[in-house]
Amino acid sequence: DPAQSVDTDRIAADPRDIPDPVDWDEPRHHEIEIATTEEIAEVEPGVTFQYMTFGGQVPGPMVRVREGDTINLTLTNESESAMPHNIDFHATYGPGGGADDTTIGPGESATIEFQAMYPGIHVYHCAVPNMDHHISAGMFGAILVEPEDGLPEVDHEFYFGQHELYTEGQAGEEGHHGFDFDSMRAEDPTYVCLNGEAYAFTGNGYGPMTVDKGDTVRVFFASGGPNLTSSVHPIGNVMSRYYRDGDLLSEPDRNIETAPVAPGTVAAWEMETPVPGPIKIVDHALSRVVRKGMMGVIEVEGE
Amino acid sequence: DPAQSVDTDRIAADPRDIPDPVDWDEPRHHEIEIATTEEIAEVEPGVTFQYMTFGGQVPGPMVRVREGDTINLTLTNESESAMPHNIDFHATYGPGGGADDTTIGPGESATIEFQAMYPGIHVYHCAVPNMDHHISAGMFGAILVEPEDGLPEVDHEFYFGQHELYTEGQAGEEGHHGFDFDSMRAEDPTYVCLNGEAYAFTGNGYGPMTVDKGDTVRVFFASGGPNLTSSVHPIGNVMSRYYRDGDLLSEPDRNIETAPVAPGTVAAWEMETPVPGPIKIVDHALSRVVRKGMMGVIEVEGE
Amino acid sequence: DPAQSVDTDRIAADPRDIPDPVDWDEPRHHEIEIATTEEIAEVEPGVTFQYMTFGGQVPGPMVRVREGDTINLTLTNESESAMPHNIDFHATYGPGGGADDTTIGPGESATIEFQAMYPGIHVYHCAVPNMDHHISAGMFGAILVEPEDGLPEVDHEFYFGQHELYTEGQAGEEGHHGFDFDSMRAEDPTYVCLNGEAYAFTGNGYGPMTVDKGDTVRVFFASGGPNLTSSVHPIGNVMSRYYRDGDLLSEPDRNIETAPVAPGTVAAWEMETPVPGPIKIVDHALSRVVRKGMMGVIEVEGE
Ligand SMILES: [Cu+2]
Ligand SMILES: [Cu+2]
Ligand SMILES: [Cu+2]
Ligand SMILES: [Cu+2]
Ligand SMILES: [Cu+2]
Ligand SMILES: [Cu+2]
Ligand code: NA
Ligand code: NA
Ligand code: NA
Ligand code: NA
Ligand code: NA
Ligand code: NA
Ligand SMILES: [Zn+2]
Ligand SMILES: [Zn+2]
Ligand SMILES: [Zn+2]
Ligand SMILES: [Zn+2]
Ligand SMILES: [Zn+2]
Ligand SMILES: [Zn+2]
Ligand SMILES: [Zn+2]
Ligand SMILES: [Zn+2]
Ligand SMILES: [Zn+2]
Repeated sequence: DPAQSVDTDRIAADPRDIPDPVDWDEPRHHEIEIATTEEIAEVEPGVTFQYMTFGGQVPGPMVRVREGDTINLTLTNESESAMPHNIDFHATYGPGGGADDTTIGPGESATIEFQAMYPGIHVYHCAVPNMDHHISAGMFGAILVEPEDGLPEVDHEFYFGQHELYTEGQAGEEGHHGFDFDSMRAEDPTYVCLNGEAYAFTGNGYGPMTVDKGDTVRVFFASGGPNLTSSVHPIGNVMSRYYRDGDLLSEPDRNIETAPVAPGTVAAWEMETPVPGPIKIVDHALSRVVRKGMMGVIEVEGE
Repeated sequence: DPAQSVDTDRIAADPRDIPDPVDWDEPRHHEIEIATTEEIAEVEPGVTFQYMTFGGQVPGPMVRVREGDTINLTLTNESESAMPHNIDFHATYGPGGGADDTTIGPGESATIEFQAMYPGIHVYHCAVPNMDHHISAGMFGAILVEPEDGLPEVDHEFYFGQHELYTEGQAGEEGHHGFDFDSMRAEDPTYVCLNGEAYAFTGNGYGPMTVDKGDTVRVFFASGGPNLTSSVHPIGNVMSRYYRDGDLLSEPDRNIETAPVAPGTVAAWEMETPVPGPIKIVDHALSRVVRKGMMGVIEVEGE
Repeated sequence: DPAQSVDTDRIAADPRDIPDPVDWDEPRHHEIEIATTEEIAEVEPGVTFQYMTFGGQVPGPMVRVREGDTINLTLTNESESAMPHNIDFHATYGPGGGADDTTIGPGESATIEFQAMYPGIHVYHCAVPNMDHHISAGMFGAILVEPEDGLPEVDHEFYFGQHELYTEGQAGEEGHHGFDFDSMRAEDPTYVCLNGEAYAFTGNGYGPMTVDKGDTVRVFFASGGPNLTSSVHPIGNVMSRYYRDGDLLSEPDRNIETAPVAPGTVAAWEMETPVPGPIKIVDHALSRVVRKGMMGVIEVEGE
């Protein structure tokens, strides 16, 4: 099929677009609004796909609160939508993590309120009955519940999300890629994306993220799935403090090269940058990197 | 093929059927008898399969002892069986974890005795040459070796086992499903089961497990495989203390949403239940949940 | 296709061929030379494959240094080669972990020098654009950077590497197996090897490794991939101290039966041997053991 006209120039979330670190020490109340959208965008130049999103981006906007804060979330399903959507926060106790109370048809809104009781970094995602399809179409993001004592200060934070696209085409085949339920059932994706696109944060896309030599860097890495476990690895670096499975309360692991990040998990880590050059964030199941799109670059600038 | 007549009304083990916690503090001697069976049962209504089991249930009966206890195990292969079977306890040092000394044909018995030297929660399984087939047919379970100081007290414990079925049919296709070695070789299962059936502990099966709001809950989660890694997750909850890979001696991880559980591992965790409603135990590789049967519910009752 | 004539009688690295433990306490300088080769060898009797290697063996030679040491590495691509190669050390900061500065055509050499700044046990591998092919052909190994205080003393150390072969044939099918990019893209391997061959360290190959009853054993286990996560398990034993993902600085996990080892990771563990008999090192995704070659034996000798 020929490529379709796009509804947006870019589906990839900006990895730098993260709320500021928590700088308060009393419980706060947050009013958060997120719209669910359905829009056609490019996976890579010449390849279009019917995305579904939180906030018009993949991954959806990162939410950041402090342990004990209250979140009042209004989810609005755009009137142009064809499907119902909802939201399951892995950061909340209760039915479907909020999904049961937020299932809304096109043009509808729902509001839930919950207290962020357990610190950690967690996934949120759409959880309608065909949730694997909705997540594969882009409906996942991360919520960070900082512990009372916060996180170590760093110079830069980035927010990435890996997930897989199941389509009737082959990676790189120009045209519109229809969704393929058979390959999803077989867990055999066409693309494995970073922030919803193929190779978006390289010279072939929006360019790399940049930091200065000597900066400390923290990465929040959401594994959306719906099915694959990522073997996350920073080429040319090491994860010097690794918060396995988003555990922010235990001592982080040390000098981790590669680690499994199951679908439905957000991992986080901190890196040092003593040497200039690219740090390539990949899934070390390398055929996903070489053949399916899963790579993004943080460029360390300096001499 | 048409569905076959069943040898048992239910293959799914009752998740509540667990030995009591250790309440002794001197080494004990345990006489344990387990029968291996081969029986046709339903995966879901209208779908039959040729199971092989320990004790007529999937997963097999949970064994629970204290570090330093002695286990005298008699394995009996029912005379109606067509195949030899044996048992490999991951909790014991020695050839095949006991498998070499317990390989028995139909109508035979074998007895082994071993001391449970290392605390942890471990898998047992049949380990004949075609062990992947026997495990896929249901032959796995868990043995808990409690540390000298025991485990934290909780209000409820549940015992679940995930494993995958490789058949010539598609999930949901009525009739008898013959075993399919080709899809097993490709690690592309038809069903991914909790306690041997599809959706057994939901309203469509035997109903959910129930606890009262405020109860503390511990789950023992055996990943039988034979091939898939589970990305275990409790929907609407969090694993507040997670015993990764069954390690009961290190400090548990904290507030884990999802974690990888390799085939041949038993993980365990504790949860709090401050909010009523269902907690859905899933593999967060969600196509296994939506399309292949892998979900069971713990209902938190109360206001 | 008929089997081809071999360039070497054996591609499997000797698991005992490991540099001695660090016994120095001041920073050292190491001159290391590794040749990249392309050679035909047997996967199992009667089955040939076009390997690519570091040092003529799979996995490549283990490098062992102390935190703070300097490595001066010369990589030489044999003149008989058809392809360019390079080397990415997961143990070094900088572009491609060294790959950018070592890409060499047939007959060329390149030298890099770097300081081993972060302790841990890490993978190295070829990282040319088709790196998944080169790794599948055998181009991976391990570098151990010992912490300042070293590792616990043990009686025996072994070095194993798991990786997968993607070929146009079926496992066990005699003849020459051409490389199959389609099955690599689908992550559906023909063989899953230990040290590059099928069942090499069993009675059908070079025989088991041997230790004496009561010996302590450490295993370095490199997961080359390029795509599969290993569920590593020692049949008839337990990993009493498990260095998850090669983390040598945190407290090791305790009594781990099975653990995920992502491609691009080296795990390590220590075992006790109180009972004689075979310890079978496997990937507990058992169809890889039963049907694809992934097993090696450490025989515990004694009464
Ligand atoms: Cu939706
Ligand atoms: Cu979820
Ligand atoms: Cu059996
Ligand atoms: Cu086993
Ligand atoms: Cu190469
Ligand atoms: Cu690498
Ligand atoms: Na496709
Ligand atoms: Na998390
Ligand atoms: Na099937
Ligand atoms: Na265990
Ligand atoms: Na093949
Ligand atoms: Na490592
Ligand atoms: Zn409010
Ligand atoms: Zn959705
Ligand atoms: Zn900066
Ligand atoms: Zn006895
Ligand atoms: Zn069996
Ligand atoms: Zn209760
Ligand atoms: Zn030098
Ligand atoms: Zn290479
Ligand atoms: Zn010895």
